[in-house]
Amino acid sequence: MKVRRSERLIDMTRYLLERPHALVSLTFFAERYESAKSSISEDLTILKRTFQMRGTGILETIPGAAGGARFIPYILKEEAQTFIDEMTDLVADKSRVLPGGYIYLSDILGQPEILRQVGRVIATQYLNQKIDAVMTVATKGIPIAQSVATYLNVPFVIVRNDSKITEGSTVSVNYVSGSSERIKKMELSKRSLSEGANVLIVDDFMKGGGTINGMKTLIEEFDANLIGITVFAEAAFTGNRLIDDYTSLLRVTNVNDNEKAIKVVPGNYLETVFGAEV
Amino acid sequence: MKVRRSERLIDMTRYLLERPHALVSLTFFAERYESAKSSISEDLTILKRTFQMRGTGILETIPGAAGGARFIPYILKEEAQTFIDEMTDLVADKSRVLPGGYIYLSDILGQPEILRQVGRVIATQYLNQKIDAVMTVATKGIPIAQSVATYLNVPFVIVRNDSKITEGSTVSVNYVSGSSERIKKMELSKRSLSEGANVLIVDDFMKGGGTINGMKTLIEEFDANLIGITVFAEAAFTGNRLIDDYTSLLRVTNVNDNEKAIKVVPGNYLETVFGAEV
Repeated sequence: MKVRRSERLIDMTRYLLERPHALVSLTFFAERYESAKSSISEDLTILKRTFQMRGTGILETIPGAAGGARFIPYILKEEAQTFIDEMTDLVADKSRVLPGGYIYLSDILGQPEILRQVGRVIATQYLNQKIDAVMTVATKGIPIAQSVATYLNVPFVIVRNDSKITEGSTVSVNYVSGSSERIKKMELSKRSLSEGANVLIVDDFMKGGGTINGMKTLIEEFDANLIGITVFAEAAFTGNRLIDDYTSLLRVTNVNDNEKAIKVVPGNYLETVFGAEV
Repeated sequence: MKVRRSERLIDMTRYLLERPHALVSLTFFAERYESAKSSISEDLTILKRTFQMRGTGILETIPGAAGGARFIPYILKEEAQTFIDEMTDLVADKSRVLPGGYIYLSDILGQPEILRQVGRVIATQYLNQKIDAVMTVATKGIPIAQSVATYLNVPFVIVRNDSKITEGSTVSVNYVSGSSERIKKMELSKRSLSEGANVLIVDDFMKGGGTINGMKTLIEEFDANLIGITVFAEAAFTGNRLIDDYTSLLRVTNVNDNEKAIKVVPGNYLETVFGAEV
């Protein structure tokens, strides 16, 4: 039975949103809805316009009978700015300050609606780059990696500090923890990454940059390529930071454990992604 | 400017899919699209019918001017069965067998499209129950918890085996690892769970059930309530399993490290959720 336009639009929206960056053919939709390809083409034009108008993303349409559509989610500058401002306020809460100048973020990074936006924000930065895998280190980077990977529709891989039998053979590297200056070890399952893979590193929090530097070394060990580094929050750090080319959504400029004071400002994300005049 | 029906349907679909279980008011949509509530009501009827027809979920509509809509995602039995069968084939791969009878699952649990379906499948089981938080243990349970939490639209909390300064004050419990019979310790940040919270436990793999038993003890320590336990895969276990009331998507019935043999069958999920005649 032929499906009406209204029903097609609803189901196509869901179908495309669930498969970012994947090319879905006109033929597939035409068969799914028992409708003419010309009708599907018209549907896609409406979808494209609506996605653009609402800041949902780009619907790339490939014309012709062999064509189709590819949904590329993004966030517009204004919405990203609003979100980063909200996060700035949420993190800048005295009760989050922990001994040693650490900050409690687990509640924030356990909320699906926040993680969805964090993923969308970070994925927007790498919209036009070929990413094969998102990499993070256990534990708190995982939800961010998963959300970014969902928007980019690529796998994510988890580097671990502890050796687990369930990972099989691993490649391990030593790294210097930038903030504590201790030598640590991190490892990644051998099967996780292919040679030549383009890797995006994400993490929740960066202080000295030692952990991220360790992941960079791991990427080299796998003969893979580092495409970029984006963290949710970077901390004020007075020592010699090991990483300089990175993007942050938030920057914690001042944490005082004794006075339980904390100051948070937007990181360099908006400037990096949307240009200087922020 | 008044928004046309086709554009409303596309944007409402996206808006509702991104906010499962949340009540969105008629007034909100009427203002968003500068359209009459009666038109929005008609839109919701079309959405409801399409979501039902395509097995996307239930759109609960609350009638009247003060009413609205709530999207409750689910998976139908047939689609769940197909997915579980696919996972059964994917896991039953000799190259996954690791020393000690463990199984390599990290690649599967790092694919957003698989995690999306795992989350949808597990969330369907708890559709009609009030869940306040999804709990799991680091590391490999996290992606599953995040996906289930996204479909239920509730926070997830991560229990850890290692003590991290970034968690602040924690509550810790000792537990007996069922398979190795060693005493271990797990802990959860004090701020993670409220008293009386209804908690769903999920994990990637259950062998002796010791880890899950530890989480049960933690839930008691927080004066919270355990609502259910669902794991992606349960292993063949000949000892005295510490947990008996749980649901599994897959059951690994036989793993032989020497011969690199593995046998996987569907777990009790389909029977538990959709009734006996599977």
